[in-house]
Amino acid sequence: MPFTPPVTEQRFVLDTVVRLPDLAAVDRFAAASPDVVDAVLEGAGQFAAGEWAPLARVGDTVGAKWTPEGVVMPAGYAQAYRDYVEGGWGTIGAPEQWGGQGLPFALQTAVLETLGGANMGFALCPTLTVGAIEALQHHGSAEQQAAYLPKLSTGEWTGTMNLTEPQAGSDVGALRATATPRDDGTWSIKGTKIYISFGDHDMAPNIVHLVLARTPGAPAGTRGISLFLVPKYRLDADGQPGAFNDVRVVSIEHKMGLHASPTCVLSFGDEDDCVGELIGPEFGGIRAMFTMMNNARLNVGLQGVQVAEGATQAAVAYALERVQSARAGAASRDSVRIVEHPDVRRMLLRMKAQTQAARALVYYAAGQVDRAGLGDADARDRLEITTPLAKAHGTDLGNEVASLGIQVHGGMGYVEETGAAQFFRDARITPIYEGTNGIQAADLVGRKLGLSGGAAFASLLADIRAEAEHPTLRALVDACEAVGAHLAAAGHDDRLAGSYPFLMMLSVATCGWLMERQGRLATGDEAFAAMKRAAVAFYLDQIVPEALGLRAAATASAEVLYAVPAEAFAA
Amino acid sequence: MPFTPPVTEQRFVLDTVVRLPDLAAVDRFAAASPDVVDAVLEGAGQFAAGEWAPLARVGDTVGAKWTPEGVVMPAGYAQAYRDYVEGGWGTIGAPEQWGGQGLPFALQTAVLETLGGANMGFALCPTLTVGAIEALQHHGSAEQQAAYLPKLSTGEWTGTMNLTEPQAGSDVGALRATATPRDDGTWSIKGTKIYISFGDHDMAPNIVHLVLARTPGAPAGTRGISLFLVPKYRLDADGQPGAFNDVRVVSIEHKMGLHASPTCVLSFGDEDDCVGELIGPEFGGIRAMFTMMNNARLNVGLQGVQVAEGATQAAVAYALERVQSARAGAASRDSVRIVEHPDVRRMLLRMKAQTQAARALVYYAAGQVDRAGLGDADARDRLEITTPLAKAHGTDLGNEVASLGIQVHGGMGYVEETGAAQFFRDARITPIYEGTNGIQAADLVGRKLGLSGGAAFASLLADIRAEAEHPTLRALVDACEAVGAHLAAAGHDDRLAGSYPFLMMLSVATCGWLMERQGRLATGDEAFAAMKRAAVAFYLDQIVPEALGLRAAATASAEVLYAVPAEAFAA
Repeated sequence: MPFTPPVTEQRFVLDTVVRLPDLAAVDRFAAASPDVVDAVLEGAGQFAAGEWAPLARVGDTVGAKWTPEGVVMPAGYAQAYRDYVEGGWGTIGAPEQWGGQGLPFALQTAVLETLGGANMGFALCPTLTVGAIEALQHHGSAEQQAAYLPKLSTGEWTGTMNLTEPQAGSDVGALRATATPRDDGTWSIKGTKIYISFGDHDMAPNIVHLVLARTPGAPAGTRGISLFLVPKYRLDADGQPGAFNDVRVVSIEHKMGLHASPTCVLSFGDEDDCVGELIGPEFGGIRAMFTMMNNARLNVGLQGVQVAEGATQAAVAYALERVQSARAGAASRDSVRIVEHPDVRRMLLRMKAQTQAARALVYYAAGQVDRAGLGDADARDRLEITTPLAKAHGTDLGNEVASLGIQVHGGMGYVEETGAAQFFRDARITPIYEGTNGIQAADLVGRKLGLSGGAAFASLLADIRAEAEHPTLRALVDACEAVGAHLAAAGHDDRLAGSYPFLMMLSVATCGWLMERQGRLATGDEAFAAMKRAAVAFYLDQIVPEALGLRAAATASAEVLYAVPAEAFAA
Repeated sequence: MPFTPPVTEQRFVLDTVVRLPDLAAVDRFAAASPDVVDAVLEGAGQFAAGEWAPLARVGDTVGAKWTPEGVVMPAGYAQAYRDYVEGGWGTIGAPEQWGGQGLPFALQTAVLETLGGANMGFALCPTLTVGAIEALQHHGSAEQQAAYLPKLSTGEWTGTMNLTEPQAGSDVGALRATATPRDDGTWSIKGTKIYISFGDHDMAPNIVHLVLARTPGAPAGTRGISLFLVPKYRLDADGQPGAFNDVRVVSIEHKMGLHASPTCVLSFGDEDDCVGELIGPEFGGIRAMFTMMNNARLNVGLQGVQVAEGATQAAVAYALERVQSARAGAASRDSVRIVEHPDVRRMLLRMKAQTQAARALVYYAAGQVDRAGLGDADARDRLEITTPLAKAHGTDLGNEVASLGIQVHGGMGYVEETGAAQFFRDARITPIYEGTNGIQAADLVGRKLGLSGGAAFASLLADIRAEAEHPTLRALVDACEAVGAHLAAAGHDDRLAGSYPFLMMLSVATCGWLMERQGRLATGDEAFAAMKRAAVAFYLDQIVPEALGLRAAATASAEVLYAVPAEAFAA
């Protein structure tokens, strides 16, 4: 499926939502000049459209395959990955000290959007590497950083996150993998991890697994978890991949979508010969995990943008081509392209608006990563409160848009060869992994609503209010404030019962704010500005009111949920 | 995946929503005594759970296969189909004159729900046969009826609907298949039809294709279409399948789901030897098609119920078993079954409530089929206005519930072996076929809103108002009235631009009415009644308010949709 990188839109969102020029005014990000930003966006777009998009379909139809020797990627992937590394596309946001370009995370986000818009399953591989880089950068020793970060920063080696075990999914504290001290200060790792994306593949000479495990006598739950660095191949004296480190890929999952991404069951230490190094202090695992996970959550929200952009492009192309029926009320009885029919046009404009809203939300949060990295405490709070919104709402929108994309295609949308179905299948994992969207909602009401004594929430609302003009958007902000106050004072059950609708309301309010701003600032390129204003008007006039309809659910008591015993649900 | 027929619920809905006892008081339906209804529901449930449900997975994983000799169903299907015929499950609603049981369509609907709840793809086959029966019953000659209805009524032969061609999807008037008169009064059929569900298979000795085609000199568009009866095998002198009738299955589609249902490309008359009989008058095709299609639309809405019921059962079973994390705020720090977590419980109650709402809506419309059949003109109007709601909203809910079902399963939901993904994939065709949901919305605002001078719409609202007590539900009815008046007076573009949100509002108002009534009447079986009341309360308190949030979109001008030229959507 052809893919057109949305460069003008990305540039505009980086300017108006992220306010990248303000960031570039700081020494740390001085390299992010307008010329560089343009070159990166254009270059990434050309690369992704030219080399990764053509592999999206074979990624789905053939997919990654398990063999006794390890996972084999579909034809073309290994070469396309090497070209990615050689093109330097992995180094955008990586630290300069380790060979990266040190550009803003927000710009890296745009590049990752482009890669994933071209081929979502493939782009998950670099996404995870970024998580490993973050963890090592913040928690690794100088030796670990020197040994691993140069190779991870370029993407020459890839990274994984190993959290989940069969009995430990959302409840990561229930994990049982063990790390036993060895004489030389390293640790012997043993256990089985599941759902490890790109846990094995044939595109890189080494894979760096970051593994959560328990040390002997560790306290129960999340407090007793430590993080270990476990390469697939141990490094030899020259720092090159050497002896096999007893990490086996047992199987890969047979998933509904995202077939290009091998979802592995990994077994560590079957032969008692798996060696790991502790990252950070013992029992510091959960903290290090959140370092990886927070940005990973944004990147999963970004997958919602990726799939929404791809699905929208495909649906628009089809609607501009498919001729069917005369337009109702038109003088001519000639059949027209379906894009001319009002309800099809409504679906397409909704897809455009929701895609832009998701992008604004995720890029906005990504900009806070950069600002927080500069030491801005308010930005840290803002990042904390917008992360669950970006992850959950971004992925929800990806799913909504992918579904609309099938609908625009009609019967053709249900036929696999068309490609609309792949977006729909690929998207469905995103509300689940990196913390289900329900977990995001729990995080919002449980941790973020009360963050900094409630100031994180209050200041977000204040910023929206300071700028919002649309009366419905202002009404939604008022509603969010009232619901937030209600939930903050509520008991656990009521708070969680209302958490998801509240997350949706606050997400739409935030998107509405950022969309309205874009509509106000859209000038210059008149074709782009007109489309933007239409999407913004649709968002404010038609989507924002929907969110007001969620207020009742957000403030409903949990009582109705527990009115009958659990078993009664099965009757 | 095990399937538990929801017999108590079905019986309750037939009693309270369909008011089946009132129907049974009429001679025509005297056979539908409480004992018979119970026996039918129980028997169908046992049969479907025992014989069809176990085949659902192989239907998905193996699926129907094309071979040069025709379509081959997966192992077990042919036998299970014969058992269905022998058990008499196809004859429930078929006319007594032709060997059917002549029971109410609403009861047949319940049986079909059960069959499809057990195995949705499989149940599509009898669904289409019912359409063929309806068409022949209302438009066939006495000879045609005598020759075909006995075999179709038992299900010994199956039926198909042949409308779509590559260039004629939603715009059926664009079809090009031809019928040329032969000397003996029959017609020579020629053309290619696509998307023909169960267009070929190996479960029955004959397949009766109902084919729309153009006769020589026919006017353009839908006015020039005629309906033909085209058996796969011509009947010999004894009325048995004889010579092959030159109907070839060219290929079957590679679909995202519903793999048990072969979606065929059929080629008629490749050898100029395909003989058809005209059904009804020449150019009467579109009228006959609507006879088939109207009930087919209800039956597709019913597929939404089927998939919602199956997905809910699977999610509840998983949530009752999967243990993960302690409950927030609970004294015990022990992990609990996820059904105990408020947000999981919210998803499950939403699934229950939406499934019940979809069932109420579709069964209600089915009851109007029976009443209209008794000559009740008001019921005919009510059927007309509720058909697009049942089709579109029923299928939308099926999709929503299937998606929630995946979410409840977490990562397991994305792994195919779990089965949650199959519901999600199977469901996605239902908003598309038998008239896309956008077409349903256009039908609602274009034809049904003004039906009988607006009386059909007004009387639906009046009936809801006469019974509705919940203030939000009453507010929604007021909103529907205002929006309906607005759309009735609007131009084509505005009316169509608001059609879909309006359809959703009116659907929820109708469901809310029928749900509230059930909550009021739920007594007796206390466990059942308590679950029903919880689902109803959730529906009225949390789902009905969401629909109020659609008012702005339903009354928005189409202007924003056309603010930019179509090509700008691709920029």
